[in-house]
Amino acid sequence: MIFTNISILDENMQLQENMYVGIKNEKIDYIGKEMPFTDYGESYPGKGKLLMSGFYNTHAHSPMTLLRGYGENLALQAWLNERIFPFEAKLDGNAVYWGTMLAMAESLRFGIVSTTDMYYFCEDMVKAIEQAGTKDNVGRGVTNFTDSDLYSLESFSEMKALYGNYHNTAGGRIKIDMSLHAEYTSNPKTVQQMAAYTKAIGANMHVHVSETKLEHEECKARHNGMTPIQYFNDLGLLDSKTTAAHCVWVEPEDMDIMKEKGVTVASNPISNLKLASGVCNVPELLKRGINVSIGTDSVSSNNSLDFIEEMKIFAISSKEKYQDPTAVTPTETLYAATRAGALSQGREDCGKLAVGYKADVIVLDIMKPNFVPVHDMVNNIVYSACGGDVVLTMVDGKVLYKDGVYTTIDLEKTMFETNKATKNIISQL
Amino acid sequence: MIFTNISILDENMQLQENMYVGIKNEKIDYIGKEMPFTDYGESYPGKGKLLMSGFYNTHAHSPMTLLRGYGENLALQAWLNERIFPFEAKLDGNAVYWGTMLAMAESLRFGIVSTTDMYYFCEDMVKAIEQAGTKDNVGRGVTNFTDSDLYSLESFSEMKALYGNYHNTAGGRIKIDMSLHAEYTSNPKTVQQMAAYTKAIGANMHVHVSETKLEHEECKARHNGMTPIQYFNDLGLLDSKTTAAHCVWVEPEDMDIMKEKGVTVASNPISNLKLASGVCNVPELLKRGINVSIGTDSVSSNNSLDFIEEMKIFAISSKEKYQDPTAVTPTETLYAATRAGALSQGREDCGKLAVGYKADVIVLDIMKPNFVPVHDMVNNIVYSACGGDVVLTMVDGKVLYKDGVYTTIDLEKTMFETNKATKNIISQL
Repeated sequence: MIFTNISILDENMQLQENMYVGIKNEKIDYIGKEMPFTDYGESYPGKGKLLMSGFYNTHAHSPMTLLRGYGENLALQAWLNERIFPFEAKLDGNAVYWGTMLAMAESLRFGIVSTTDMYYFCEDMVKAIEQAGTKDNVGRGVTNFTDSDLYSLESFSEMKALYGNYHNTAGGRIKIDMSLHAEYTSNPKTVQQMAAYTKAIGANMHVHVSETKLEHEECKARHNGMTPIQYFNDLGLLDSKTTAAHCVWVEPEDMDIMKEKGVTVASNPISNLKLASGVCNVPELLKRGINVSIGTDSVSSNNSLDFIEEMKIFAISSKEKYQDPTAVTPTETLYAATRAGALSQGREDCGKLAVGYKADVIVLDIMKPNFVPVHDMVNNIVYSACGGDVVLTMVDGKVLYKDGVYTTIDLEKTMFETNKATKNIISQL
Repeated sequence: MIFTNISILDENMQLQENMYVGIKNEKIDYIGKEMPFTDYGESYPGKGKLLMSGFYNTHAHSPMTLLRGYGENLALQAWLNERIFPFEAKLDGNAVYWGTMLAMAESLRFGIVSTTDMYYFCEDMVKAIEQAGTKDNVGRGVTNFTDSDLYSLESFSEMKALYGNYHNTAGGRIKIDMSLHAEYTSNPKTVQQMAAYTKAIGANMHVHVSETKLEHEECKARHNGMTPIQYFNDLGLLDSKTTAAHCVWVEPEDMDIMKEKGVTVASNPISNLKLASGVCNVPELLKRGINVSIGTDSVSSNNSLDFIEEMKIFAISSKEKYQDPTAVTPTETLYAATRAGALSQGREDCGKLAVGYKADVIVLDIMKPNFVPVHDMVNNIVYSACGGDVVLTMVDGKVLYKDGVYTTIDLEKTMFETNKATKNIISQL
């Protein structure tokens, strides 16, 4: 495929107009001002359009589309205990498959090419993702409320099997991460064993960290004043390449450790506002050179996968909280949404519109009133675009979404099956 | 026109499916489960669609679309002094006309049917709004940094002429409000004279109140500890029906006055976050029964008119700031975005999907992945919809926007002329 006469945001986030971009063998093969000699096949007329890197969503629970808008306006504990947990107890593989498929359809609509997920029934998730053509770092969240050995847990065997069967499959689109749910849902022995195992196999670690003040303070009370980051570091968990979701309440000492250990933050600004958890100190994390990426969290606390909206809230919620309108620039935000996310997922050849990189790209329709005038295109993308402006999403060189139409997903069937599975669960409650 | 087999959010914000809604003489004439006998002309097939009230944007500076994304990442004073003020000094009527037209196009795309505006070159604004077919409460913001009498000010004579020539014209679509910019841009004599004049002619008042902490504190220092609300009340300004924009820093005593005087709050959550001004205490205002509506502020501090996004941030930013995830429900949010706004604009027959009300309505495409499943449609509209889901906007029974096409606005020409006017101004700086 070749994009012709198209505006692009290049790898330095600079706007270039009237460009030609050729895609070959899953990769960006050519970027230039002239029509190349190579025959790239189908031509995409780019007038009035903008081509850029797709988005990498670094913290999600995709199947929770099934719980979109379920149990709103409740305090956290009531929401979890009266709504989320009873619903989740009735889940099955079929529901998870369709819930994941729906999440992939929504992701593609909003320009997300790759997701870092933590959930269960992971084999069903993998099947949906395989079919959808998206990328995903799938993790089986491990919890342990007993004294048992990690190695005797069912969730651990599932995770191990998953890694063996699916890691780096579908041409590398699917990766399996090790995933510990959180400090408050396990114990030191489990953490230590997870740390050792993850390091031994060279996998990535995905974990919830300091999402709420309560979680953060209770951890300190339980572990001699150690914060979740200090506790995990102490037990070796951060010796593997780690993505820490939320990090709303991390302290300066935690940031020192995160910087030293190369931890990526997956900040989930909308979920954090909506659940009244707080606002991640993105300005300070960026100042220290920590890799900060963006996640949506689940749609049951968001309640959408509109990544353009997520970028805007990422930037502006930090400005208010930390009283600096100059902090978290649109360029920093766009980097967090693309390259920083790809790096956290171990996808070094992704997240940049540059020759040799994987063709995970999106097209925005910029002939819309909200894109005019253009004083600075990056400002317009982060602050003025809306999710509906995405008109094409391509993963590994394959068009998966174009003008509302999916090439790998039967949207009508997905909506039907998701509704059916949801109603089925509700009827059992 | 008749909408057939359509889902609706009725006047009680309840979802009803497979409904018929007939429009006649600018009004909603019929809502029922059966096809009516009356011939309403053109039929709109409503399968997979949702009909609801349009949005009333109660605080904006529409022509500032020209400054979208201009001078980002600056602190407030540098932004105003180095960018906004020099740019605005070069404005002319032609630029304002096209900037307003662009704002109307963007508003219609995102379901806004009516706007409360404060700016200058108001006659050019009125002409654009007349042409666009939208509704607007236009105000000529009055400032006075001298000792002069209000009645000798050019801005006052412009406002007076505007009121005489345009108030309640275009079938009531265009209203002229009296508009005092703010406490810090005038003096007690001006406020007193504005208050008396506004009361005498029975007009609405539109004013900025306690947007930043600095403004709020400096007012108290200048006026014997009186906050902006107390100062305005003391001088009689609130004796007229008042819309107070921002109200981020109002105090409990201010809220008592606002409740007593029937002041409407126009909360601008995105602009307040982006400029790091703070977060309006919407939970407390609602608890006291104060009429709270939603504004976008100008796109130079937003930077879009995506009202669906604005609703979501209205709800979730308050939840975090005031530490209560149960506060500001989707139903309260939708009321603020519709009926509360219409009331603040003196449009008593607007903002409700009910027989006899003006047909200011929008249609959302709900056959999108982000609308599935439907545990509660109001939750989905406020938290899961995106601006791009609006597929039809009707004002006073006339379709102004449908599937990306405008019936009253030449979008291509508007984008061209806005770009030209912007470049012309930039070239003079």
